[in-house]
Amino acid sequence: MRILLDVMGADREPAEIVRGAVLARAEYRDVEITLVGDEEKIAAALSDAGADRGDFTVVHEPAFISMEDSPMLAASSKHPSSMAKTLRMLADGEGDAAVSCGNTGALFTGATLICRRIPGVRRAALGMVFPYEKPILMLDCGANVTVTSEYLVQFATLGTCYMKNVFGIEEPTVGLLNNGAEPHKGTPLAVETYQALSARSDIRFIGNVEGKDIPFAPCDVLVCDGFTGNISLKSSEGLARFSMQKLTETVRGGNPIEKLAARILKNKFDKLNRFFDPKEYGGAPFLGLARPVIKAHGNSDANAVKNAIRQAAAYAGTGVIREITEHLAENAASAGQE
Amino acid sequence: MRILLDVMGADREPAEIVRGAVLARAEYRDVEITLVGDEEKIAAALSDAGADRGDFTVVHEPAFISMEDSPMLAASSKHPSSMAKTLRMLADGEGDAAVSCGNTGALFTGATLICRRIPGVRRAALGMVFPYEKPILMLDCGANVTVTSEYLVQFATLGTCYMKNVFGIEEPTVGLLNNGAEPHKGTPLAVETYQALSARSDIRFIGNVEGKDIPFAPCDVLVCDGFTGNISLKSSEGLARFSMQKLTETVRGGNPIEKLAARILKNKFDKLNRFFDPKEYGGAPFLGLARPVIKAHGNSDANAVKNAIRQAAAYAGTGVIREITEHLAENAASAGQE
Repeated sequence: MRILLDVMGADREPAEIVRGAVLARAEYRDVEITLVGDEEKIAAALSDAGADRGDFTVVHEPAFISMEDSPMLAASSKHPSSMAKTLRMLADGEGDAAVSCGNTGALFTGATLICRRIPGVRRAALGMVFPYEKPILMLDCGANVTVTSEYLVQFATLGTCYMKNVFGIEEPTVGLLNNGAEPHKGTPLAVETYQALSARSDIRFIGNVEGKDIPFAPCDVLVCDGFTGNISLKSSEGLARFSMQKLTETVRGGNPIEKLAARILKNKFDKLNRFFDPKEYGGAPFLGLARPVIKAHGNSDANAVKNAIRQAAAYAGTGVIREITEHLAENAASAGQE
Repeated sequence: MRILLDVMGADREPAEIVRGAVLARAEYRDVEITLVGDEEKIAAALSDAGADRGDFTVVHEPAFISMEDSPMLAASSKHPSSMAKTLRMLADGEGDAAVSCGNTGALFTGATLICRRIPGVRRAALGMVFPYEKPILMLDCGANVTVTSEYLVQFATLGTCYMKNVFGIEEPTVGLLNNGAEPHKGTPLAVETYQALSARSDIRFIGNVEGKDIPFAPCDVLVCDGFTGNISLKSSEGLARFSMQKLTETVRGGNPIEKLAARILKNKFDKLNRFFDPKEYGGAPFLGLARPVIKAHGNSDANAVKNAIRQAAAYAGTGVIREITEHLAENAASAGQE
């Protein structure tokens, strides 16, 4: 499996991303990695990590898209960047999947314009797998702030194919994120989508899912528009960060015995933290594109990059894109026959 | 201050609600409480709580609206209920504020139809005060799934008056819940609302607020449509519950020393839990109505009911409704002059 890794434009130094590649190379022997970015910095990082330079392909492209740049830059032929280079190589078949920790909007726009959508896909979606009670894929998590029920039904199909192939779930269940359980709940779009999903025999729709139930394994795939998805995941993220901070403060304000008790439980607290961290599963897959692209968190450390590479390899190595393509072609054919 | 308390239709027995009234009566001496519900059950609960029956007014109305009933029932003259009785007494001036732990939709519909909106208010909103880093009022939390920018700007005014009067914040800041900080972020409605809020000199608008920042005191009033508000608060609620559950499980799976450490920290963990519990502030105010109505959580215990009564007294005792009324009248007058 050939993974293209954009090492530039993240919050951390390219060296941290390169270290992630070194970890992945050591752990997953069948993964070949191409590092795209500033050659000098890459060489220094590989040397610092004690890695064999010959184990990696390096493509020199020092220009990069910053977190503040316009998303359209990624697809501009006048503006070279490590991200655009990575995506073009993927589109040209010089790799099987791409990973970047850079500007999410730019990666999404660039990937859509350079790698294209699967024929029949109306909108690509940004998925995110949360490591709660059991893995749950939420999509869209922010790429499409306005959607139609047709897009949402397609997101259900994209998510079903992903969880089936990458997580090995035989018949993934699909829920619709809503403000109540009953079919009539929510916006007119939610009501329409509920009906559209219910009518599909190829989607295992279990109904509306409320925000309070997300962590408790309500379904394998949770569909929503990108605005709602962003609000839900960011609200959860904020609360998780706040609660860990308050836990630390509360314990610090304790007496010596309480402080000792907290020190004894430190490993347990760290373990708890991992339940909220999507980096555990390695990044956010773009779904609906003709080529596998994974967005890793902008703040990814080496371990998160390693996990993203593993997920990219799984995305490319399983039949996700083929299955989506066939599924949409069948649907189009049966719609044509009606 | 005369508080009308609907003791029926909640998740718990009327006795638990009555106990809350007894606690409130003991703690807030200037609060008179009318208990509306099944007289026999109320009498038994008062006796069990060792309270003096003469300290309370009791209004007998054993029929009630269940959590599953249609919201419209609360305003139906053919369907007597403790909730409708409470709201009618409030509308007739037989009390200064009302509290119910019953069906939220029914209470909202009933309150709007029976107590009426303040002249000029387009939609009433369900507010919720979260006890995070500092109190933050989010509105709407679920009453209006579809809104316009005009409604959202009014919510900002309603929230400003509430936080100023009830929480004593001199010039409350207002944020717009959105999927990014920049002015162009979000749905077309969010972009339009950002501009409308920016143009108002009487609203201290600080810009967009992302979900991840909600617990960290980004503003005093956070406006959003009721769908988004519900998704945000329920997602946070789910995560808080999940994290406390995982903390318990993680610690239970520990060795004897870890278990002892957890027992030492139990008080700290309980304290942490309170940071996420809106019941600490006593309930959700309905804003924009001509009379003060507080929705307490369906699962309220006696202490939560007591807090809701305190909040209802503060809502009625301060100038919230008068200030909103004057403010809207001034706005209408200046709009007329333009």
